Amino acid sequence: MELRRILRREDLPGIEKMLRDVQVFNEDEIICGVELAQQTLAGEEGYHWVLAVEDGALVGLICYGTVPLTQGTWDLYWILRSPGAVSRGVAKALLEACEEDLRNHGGRLLVLNTSGTPAYQPARDFYLRNGFELSARLKEYYRPGDDLCIFTKQIE
Amino acid sequence: MELRRILRREDLPGIEKMLRDVQVFNEDEIICGVELAQQTLAGEEGYHWVLAVEDGALVGLICYGTVPLTQGTWDLYWILRSPGAVSRGVAKALLEACEEDLRNHGGRLLVLNTSGTPAYQPARDFYLRNGFELSARLKEYYRPGDDLCIFTKQIE
Repeated sequence: MELRRILRREDLPGIEKMLRDVQVFNEDEIICGVELAQQTLAGEEGYHWVLAVEDGALVGLICYGTVPLTQGTWDLYWILRSPGAVSRGVAKALLEACEEDLRNHGGRLLVLNTSGTPAYQPARDFYLRNGFELSARLKEYYRPGDDLCIFTKQIE
Repeated sequence: MELRRILRREDLPGIEKMLRDVQVFNEDEIICGVELAQQTLAGEEGYHWVLAVEDGALVGLICYGTVPLTQGTWDLYWILRSPGAVSRGVAKALLEACEEDLRNHGGRLLVLNTSGTPAYQPARDFYLRNGFELSARLKEYYRPGDDLCIFTKQIE
């Protein structure tokens, strides 16, 4: 597996496929993820991407950026690992690449929003195993029965 | 005092003046607030405004909009009251107008982010007096020594 820090137009189908394959996102969320990639390719600044590639195929991605009006706080927008990836530790390697980038840019806090539903339990476990803490839980934020969980990690 | 639900180009100087007069925002935040108004005037959707006008002069504003990828959750971006307003209850009237609008659009949760610094104590007290609860506090989110406070209010 290799990591690549540049997003290319030909990645778009692979990104959409991954968003579908992980089977936790609804159609609106999939559209939102693809649009984020399209906006980055169109030159919109603020979105940093790292892609994990295995034998030429996309098997993971992470997308993050600074939070406006903060000093050194970054948002982790998406982190994905293809269920078909053979390599181990794809998500962990992507997160480490993101954290290295933050350190190089004076980042001190990484924040992510995720859902509190059972479908996201593996994701939440991954964050807790990798140095994040659950800093807040907002009841029924996404929709009735679907809480917002905010995880944060100090970057040192 | 009257409330007006349409933002006009001639409001821009008054909005910038209010952002300065309340003496809690830094230059970047003032620019951000003015840009939000400019984007709305340029046709960008998603920002709802209500303005409080007293003898032809702007004395308050509220700006809010739906949170993407949620069902019925709205973000309160800005609520401001001019220190020079003679009328009482300007901020409360603006908040009520916003809540009425949410009810009409199926909104069920109003969320706002604010700072935990002493300068924002009067604002935090206002939210607590008006049915919000402090749902989360993220340490040092804005900058070292400046926490993020997330307030939420159920709309019924």
